[in-house]
Amino acid sequence: MTKPIRVGFLGLSSDENAHLAGAWGKNAHLPYFQKSPDYTITALCNSSVESAEKAAKKYGLDTGAKVRTYGDPESLAKDDNVDLVVCSVRVDKHYRLIKPALLAGKSVFCEWPLASNLEQMQELADSAEQKKLKTIVGLQGRTGAYIHAIKKFIGNAEGQLGDILSTTLTGSAFLLGLATPKETAYLTDIKKGGNMFTITAIHLLDTLTAALGEIESHNIVLRNKRPTVALTDSTFNIVEQSYPNSTPDHILVNGVLKGDIPFNFHVRGGLPFKDTPAFDWRIYYTRGEIRITGNEMLWLGGDIKVQVFDFLANKVEDVDLNQVLQEDVKDDVALKMGLKAPADNVARLYEAFAKGETDKYLDFKQSLKWAHFIEEAYIANGFPTK
Amino acid sequence: MTKPIRVGFLGLSSDENAHLAGAWGKNAHLPYFQKSPDYTITALCNSSVESAEKAAKKYGLDTGAKVRTYGDPESLAKDDNVDLVVCSVRVDKHYRLIKPALLAGKSVFCEWPLASNLEQMQELADSAEQKKLKTIVGLQGRTGAYIHAIKKFIGNAEGQLGDILSTTLTGSAFLLGLATPKETAYLTDIKKGGNMFTITAIHLLDTLTAALGEIESHNIVLRNKRPTVALTDSTFNIVEQSYPNSTPDHILVNGVLKGDIPFNFHVRGGLPFKDTPAFDWRIYYTRGEIRITGNEMLWLGGDIKVQVFDFLANKVEDVDLNQVLQEDVKDDVALKMGLKAPADNVARLYEAFAKGETDKYLDFKQSLKWAHFIEEAYIANGFPTK
Repeated sequence: MTKPIRVGFLGLSSDENAHLAGAWGKNAHLPYFQKSPDYTITALCNSSVESAEKAAKKYGLDTGAKVRTYGDPESLAKDDNVDLVVCSVRVDKHYRLIKPALLAGKSVFCEWPLASNLEQMQELADSAEQKKLKTIVGLQGRTGAYIHAIKKFIGNAEGQLGDILSTTLTGSAFLLGLATPKETAYLTDIKKGGNMFTITAIHLLDTLTAALGEIESHNIVLRNKRPTVALTDSTFNIVEQSYPNSTPDHILVNGVLKGDIPFNFHVRGGLPFKDTPAFDWRIYYTRGEIRITGNEMLWLGGDIKVQVFDFLANKVEDVDLNQVLQEDVKDDVALKMGLKAPADNVARLYEAFAKGETDKYLDFKQSLKWAHFIEEAYIANGFPTK
Repeated sequence: MTKPIRVGFLGLSSDENAHLAGAWGKNAHLPYFQKSPDYTITALCNSSVESAEKAAKKYGLDTGAKVRTYGDPESLAKDDNVDLVVCSVRVDKHYRLIKPALLAGKSVFCEWPLASNLEQMQELADSAEQKKLKTIVGLQGRTGAYIHAIKKFIGNAEGQLGDILSTTLTGSAFLLGLATPKETAYLTDIKKGGNMFTITAIHLLDTLTAALGEIESHNIVLRNKRPTVALTDSTFNIVEQSYPNSTPDHILVNGVLKGDIPFNFHVRGGLPFKDTPAFDWRIYYTRGEIRITGNEMLWLGGDIKVQVFDFLANKVEDVDLNQVLQEDVKDDVALKMGLKAPADNVARLYEAFAKGETDKYLDFKQSLKWAHFIEEAYIANGFPTK
């Protein structure tokens, strides 16, 4: 792939009031493209050409080498001026939107989950493999600065924490509590493929395993404890009392990671207990413990705090993640460009992709490990698999 | 059994410097006997008659109707002036000390774990059953005031929290961290039967299930991650660098409780992360969450804090456990007698035993559920079962 890599972007909304999936392109993807010499956006594809044109104008992509604008994925797929199709839309639209790009031989960056079920994900991965296409999924938690901090403190050098003995991560998923924002209502339908398990839990588990090692054995408990939820509008008024929810809102996993490290994991719906972090991740070493907390989910990067409790010194120290990056990574792209969460981790994915650092991200085929994990968990706990 | 119940006590040490098992009789059992009209200590049995006499003198049991003193369990067992033999010593001595009492037809209160392995526990339970003896094990977490608080907040009445949806308990066991007090060194030999799994974890799980319901399915991960530990003296100086440890120092369980409530559990060796609680137990309800924390293990009762986060009110309130008892239990014995932890929960066990409230404690036979749980976990995780 020659540089700059020419990007055809699916899902860059111009809507000021867009939330969640609708705002993700603007908040998590665009900042890197606006600063990187390695990529250039050459095309936009939205639900209509008009919508794509509106977005092009809004983000200044209509000046100079004007981007092309499309209203259907087949037209984008045929554009010879596009090397990489980026897909950042609702999960249930991924399959239909990226399939044409793969068939046309484009590389694809697709947000996670890759598609709505294992069958679709397998088909997309097979398509990419047959054509030897470069692909990447948006599991960006694995690029976070906290991963470097965790690894930095392992080892036998003086002042460090020794071996990892075990880990526990508990978290609250915000959605599917007493009420849930109506913009996330589509995440309550298990057939759509995007929900607290496939998004929240898999992002967290991917991050945890990227830091500490692959899962070697596990027991997964999934439960739907809120078969209906109230929906709220943007001012938190309830607009629907009993919206059906068919997805798991309690995800519990325990087991053993590579290297015989026991792990424990619990994510549940709703808000965190007031004045406590949204997640609390403990990594217990021979000579100390790391605690990672934040006010959003880890991979989203809200106010992440990494603390180290050194048993011998009997002292807790806050870890400066920027300093860890400066020492360990040196040319960290997010730091260099001054990118903030959630754009920082996504930028690192793009950087790794451009540099061919394939160990830093998962391609479609590699991401099937999570597709199988999901499928197995659904079957074991009596949820439909598609 | 006529009242007052005449108690023959095994293990009331006179040693001022006794810790742990050695001090438990004095700290957890004696305070109730000193105030209750329902029990009277009529005999003491220690490792020697001299030691028993010393204890009798120290606790004022040598005046008035003087207690009899013994140096062997067979003699205590033969004493016609004893109805109930209480055994509060190291786990590995339980079997030998209480077997004579059962053979002699005495009722027995034995601290938990009942004995060193399933075979012994089964034999003791069978002996008691054959002779139709009343028995009780010291799993006193289930009598705690927090149990009433948890149950009080369930239900559909206005202002309450609704149904229980899930629960998570994480804790640090103090022992088996970077160092462990030399008085607990015997807890590192799995053959002895007392260790972080059989004591810490089972006490916690018994408490959790007494509050929320029995375990219906589970996956248990046990690991020994510190095959050696440093031993310290009472001034925290290391007296031995590498003492062997064959017991699990990481206990992870997930599964489902009766009523389809998912639960998650993780206890690990060592001290808590500095300035965080020794355990953090969350109970997530439809309309709120309860958080129970403390600076010791729950059943020991150190500074237990119960907080309720009401989702609708968006407010956290501290629960006054004494008030819960006054409202819900009314004649709570620990409250009436002004007993503090760890004597309060043990007192409630004795009270229930005296009143024949058999639903409030486990007898030997009922406690075999935990003996089987332990055996199964050992086998599944490659630990020896005896």
